[in-house]
Amino acid sequence: MALTTRLTERLGIEHPIISAPMAFAAGGRLASAVTAAGGLGLIGGWYGDGDWLEQEFREAGNARVGCGFITWSLAKAPHLLDRALAHRPRAVFFSFGDAAPFAGDVKAVGAALILQVQTLKDAKAALDLGADVVVAQGAEAGGHGERRATLTLVPEVADAIARGGYGTLLCAAGGIADGRGLAAALMLGADGAVVGSRLWASSEALVHRNMLDRAIAATGDDTVRQKVTDIARGYDWPERYDIRVVRNAYVDRWLGREEEMRAAGEGERQRYAAGVSAGDASIGAAICGEAAGLIHDVRPAGEIVAALVGQAESLLGRAGRFVRT
Amino acid sequence: MALTTRLTERLGIEHPIISAPMAFAAGGRLASAVTAAGGLGLIGGWYGDGDWLEQEFREAGNARVGCGFITWSLAKAPHLLDRALAHRPRAVFFSFGDAAPFAGDVKAVGAALILQVQTLKDAKAALDLGADVVVAQGAEAGGHGERRATLTLVPEVADAIARGGYGTLLCAAGGIADGRGLAAALMLGADGAVVGSRLWASSEALVHRNMLDRAIAATGDDTVRQKVTDIARGYDWPERYDIRVVRNAYVDRWLGREEEMRAAGEGERQRYAAGVSAGDASIGAAICGEAAGLIHDVRPAGEIVAALVGQAESLLGRAGRFVRT
Repeated sequence: MALTTRLTERLGIEHPIISAPMAFAAGGRLASAVTAAGGLGLIGGWYGDGDWLEQEFREAGNARVGCGFITWSLAKAPHLLDRALAHRPRAVFFSFGDAAPFAGDVKAVGAALILQVQTLKDAKAALDLGADVVVAQGAEAGGHGERRATLTLVPEVADAIARGGYGTLLCAAGGIADGRGLAAALMLGADGAVVGSRLWASSEALVHRNMLDRAIAATGDDTVRQKVTDIARGYDWPERYDIRVVRNAYVDRWLGREEEMRAAGEGERQRYAAGVSAGDASIGAAICGEAAGLIHDVRPAGEIVAALVGQAESLLGRAGRFVRT
Repeated sequence: MALTTRLTERLGIEHPIISAPMAFAAGGRLASAVTAAGGLGLIGGWYGDGDWLEQEFREAGNARVGCGFITWSLAKAPHLLDRALAHRPRAVFFSFGDAAPFAGDVKAVGAALILQVQTLKDAKAALDLGADVVVAQGAEAGGHGERRATLTLVPEVADAIARGGYGTLLCAAGGIADGRGLAAALMLGADGAVVGSRLWASSEALVHRNMLDRAIAATGDDTVRQKVTDIARGYDWPERYDIRVVRNAYVDRWLGREEEMRAAGEGERQRYAAGVSAGDASIGAAICGEAAGLIHDVRPAGEIVAALVGQAESLLGRAGRFVRT
């Protein structure tokens, strides 16, 4: 069996699943494993280390993978895009900023242009920019995001695509960690899903085991959108975006005292970095979304994709049983 | 055609749709219209006016409707429950507080006990309390709520029900305004949906036309969870709950200045009340959720229910097309 949507047809993949290009966590091994499993794997380009990016493309070997960028960060080091494009990525994924300066270069090499948005307003801009795929990301997602929920943003963007007569495809992101979420996304009008947290908790992800254990022990109630983690890392994220993590002692200590924390400056950043290096999950953040409550193990990405698709197939195949004629 | 789920079978209704007992907006006319359309209509018991409640039960006539309470408010005037139960409601719906003191009385008269929750933790308490139906409400909902998203909370509660071997049914609430949302809810493991905002924008709802027009003009980007509206109304809501409304000049003026607003006291409350009375949508809040972006008209509740169910039937009936064997 296989799940066939416009996304699988357009991208020439087997399953309508794209792995989120999670900063730090999504390297070449994870991306190639997702591609090997029939989805589209993406390497996370994060905050601009070109050598790391090249290393991870090499790690992915001959697998057709893509990569993703934090757009506002790429704007500070735009040459990174050239280094990525030299590897002939299957797709380039942009989120958190204006991708207009980069769209042309991506299209010129024949890569799919995937634009992730968090609002209807930005979705409209992405459509006008000629995105091949728009990703509507809800606030339930792990890592960076905004306020809208996947459940309402996806159909609203689907309507904007239909009204405007765009040929753009649509993926849902945020909160999709099993076949129920994928089946729901297709019912909402998406052509596929971008999966983050569930693949963050995979054998191939570059995540410390202690952080994984913390996320597995958590329920969805235990995550929070906040800015403490970015202040601790010294990242200058635009005000509109914050980051969902599993709560821990460090977040609880500083939540609501962000100005004081900023004032603590370098010392606090060093303390955080030392905690992360030591794998201390009471300090370092498990960057996992509300789907933490749906994740109970760390498994190979291939198994995760297969289970996710298998459950969605079963649900969609039997969905007609609800309809009594 | 009809949508058949465990909810329709258990409650003896035609469609798996329950109308949210929205304070002020959901009177007897709306509740009876939803019941007449094949769902289960609920009257909103709000902040404790027993005469209003009785009047609305009379307005509903012979229709089998239920009613809902803001639990922390009911606890201050528990006799209201007796007045409601005297009308032999089909169901009583509690949200926002501990329903333990009331559950026994509801069960004693044979009404279905519906408990709405906003977290997994409260869902577990509701299951232990013997709820007939647990409603998992996501933050995308209009009106009061919390932080969890419908998309993750519903499957997580479904798992808790399955793990615990409960016979309890599950409804999704928050962000469900069309057949896409209802179909998605069923894929997530819900047995039905509680529909608020879409029915708030119905001909039968007790909502000023100017507020409806404001919500119709809004996109989902234009709503916000905040406390300004409750401060303006003088309601002493527990800290954990806030209220989603369509942004307007009044909310924008006070958002982030809540302490200053509280200090302004009675004068500010009078100014707000006068604005509401005058139907001034730049002051009074349109209490509508993110689904505002999916709502484009005010229609009779019966038409809304029929359209919602028809679209869900179509989507579910054709869902098997995604599966290629």
